[in-house]
Amino acid sequence: MSGKNHVWRLRERPVGNITDDTLSFESESIPEPKDGECLFRLNYLSLDPTNRIWMSDEEQYMPPVALNDPMRGVVCGTVLKSNTPEFKEGDIVSGIGTWADYQIGTPGSVGLLGAIGGISVMNAFATLALVGPSAYFCLLDIGAPKAGETVVVSTAAGAVGSIVGQIAKIKGCHVVGLTGSDEKCRWIKEDLGFDEAINYKTENIPDALARSCPNGIDIYFDSVGGSILDECLKLMNLHGRIPTCGLISQYNSPDPVPGPYNYGLILMHRLKIQGFIILDYLDRFPEANEAIVNWMSEGKIKVRLDVSDGLDSALHSVKKLYTGENTGKLMVRVKDV
Amino acid sequence: MSGKNHVWRLRERPVGNITDDTLSFESESIPEPKDGECLFRLNYLSLDPTNRIWMSDEEQYMPPVALNDPMRGVVCGTVLKSNTPEFKEGDIVSGIGTWADYQIGTPGSVGLLGAIGGISVMNAFATLALVGPSAYFCLLDIGAPKAGETVVVSTAAGAVGSIVGQIAKIKGCHVVGLTGSDEKCRWIKEDLGFDEAINYKTENIPDALARSCPNGIDIYFDSVGGSILDECLKLMNLHGRIPTCGLISQYNSPDPVPGPYNYGLILMHRLKIQGFIILDYLDRFPEANEAIVNWMSEGKIKVRLDVSDGLDSALHSVKKLYTGENTGKLMVRVKDV
Repeated sequence: MSGKNHVWRLRERPVGNITDDTLSFESESIPEPKDGECLFRLNYLSLDPTNRIWMSDEEQYMPPVALNDPMRGVVCGTVLKSNTPEFKEGDIVSGIGTWADYQIGTPGSVGLLGAIGGISVMNAFATLALVGPSAYFCLLDIGAPKAGETVVVSTAAGAVGSIVGQIAKIKGCHVVGLTGSDEKCRWIKEDLGFDEAINYKTENIPDALARSCPNGIDIYFDSVGGSILDECLKLMNLHGRIPTCGLISQYNSPDPVPGPYNYGLILMHRLKIQGFIILDYLDRFPEANEAIVNWMSEGKIKVRLDVSDGLDSALHSVKKLYTGENTGKLMVRVKDV
Repeated sequence: MSGKNHVWRLRERPVGNITDDTLSFESESIPEPKDGECLFRLNYLSLDPTNRIWMSDEEQYMPPVALNDPMRGVVCGTVLKSNTPEFKEGDIVSGIGTWADYQIGTPGSVGLLGAIGGISVMNAFATLALVGPSAYFCLLDIGAPKAGETVVVSTAAGAVGSIVGQIAKIKGCHVVGLTGSDEKCRWIKEDLGFDEAINYKTENIPDALARSCPNGIDIYFDSVGGSILDECLKLMNLHGRIPTCGLISQYNSPDPVPGPYNYGLILMHRLKIQGFIILDYLDRFPEANEAIVNWMSEGKIKVRLDVSDGLDSALHSVKKLYTGENTGKLMVRVKDV
């Protein structure tokens, strides 16, 4: 295929924060699909906390991105050419790809986006490709919330956290969210229906947690680790659960990070801490997505997207995840469907 | 009742190690049972790592022992006088009591020791009152071992660890024990049938674990926390389990102790860490004890007791738990049944 491709390539493994030297934006030729492959044009690129993990060479759940390779990402695109019977020209696919305008997909790397009711492709991809099923399975399978229990959600205005809180409300829980601005606090309480919201940047966290959780904490949905985990541990009720979906507070740390100082309470209060990676649940996506689409159409789950335009904006945008600047699911729109 | 009683009372909360000033040995009068109570004579006192927790006023799973109160312990005794229909003179009871020759029991604090097959009262109490059911439920309910999996056991020559390893062998696992002397290594391998034994005081732990666990670790049975937990985390397989039965490495620390530095691997490897306290399983004791008595009579579970004589020896003996000087279940024999 003629024309130019644009590709973000990993040039340096970040030590601490992602910098402008971490990735470079290259102009390259468009690849040709071989037998069993398709070529697709990128429509939307999802930016996720896990991107920082893939840039490092620390032990992780997939191989790290190799230096000088295209950066890995969760992608949505339109098939232009297919040499595999699973896809035909015009199909909308999503899955694991790269930060590139044009790229090769296989039935192992991407799949059809599937039925999405009356939801736009961008909204469906933003919610159903990764964050919705993550929120659904991590909260329900590991957390196992019961009506009347107290659920504390970190990064509550984030892509996963905002859905976790809304599902916990659907399940009849008292839901408390931690987030990083008064505007985000307002959004999760007034628009999403959280019972309480804590601005972790301005409030005294132990006091605010104690006030918001008069019956203790039954589930702490952890996406951050660090000091907030330590504070929540102190309030965990007997047999509490800590589904661990991320540890964003430590991804950018160049030094070894100690685990929680209140680790001993895992024993004393018979807590369960369990790690979660969505890869273990790929075969159960239809279950989650059917529930989430229904809740969205009933107005019980609302999502907010933080969209930047153009693939060239991806590096600037992804940094926002680690400063808390984004509001809602962070996305790059390359070309609307 | 006439005669003298001897009682160990908590005088100081230990900061760091238990010292000779932590408890005092008092000569007192023998208490009189009220309605609903019985008086029993202590036969055996179990010394357990959890004693150190009860001496502190840190957050724990039962109220701490109050200063100047009799020290709490797991006890076995013979009923001398009963004002409750549950017990009659001559009954052997066991449960939660105090470090005292003569003491009051209630149906809520002690129960009949129950059928014990051909096993002596001392052996039955040592194994069935606390450590056997702890090993059984913590390994099987939380660890859920499958045949062929690798199980690493900390404090493997200790009271709980030695039974955990033997149950794991019964379940068809590859079992590796960590303990603190060559003699204990020999005992767990040659007498108890562990596949591998590591002397954590003399061997390089990461090398020894890697060599002993060529297929990684599926279950790390943790009774110690600290650096051994950190080393095991590095070798945990996907979806590994860490039943946490104790954290003895940190009980004596006067300073805050950080959690494991490899905490992030809980996420990356989707591990489960879950705390265990035997109090949650009191109603299921018959299930565990039936299985353990059968295994003991078949020679599949062997126990070793470390017995000191006389209640006055209790303070000296309990310190051995924190230096690893004991070999097997630590007990005080006050008066044989």
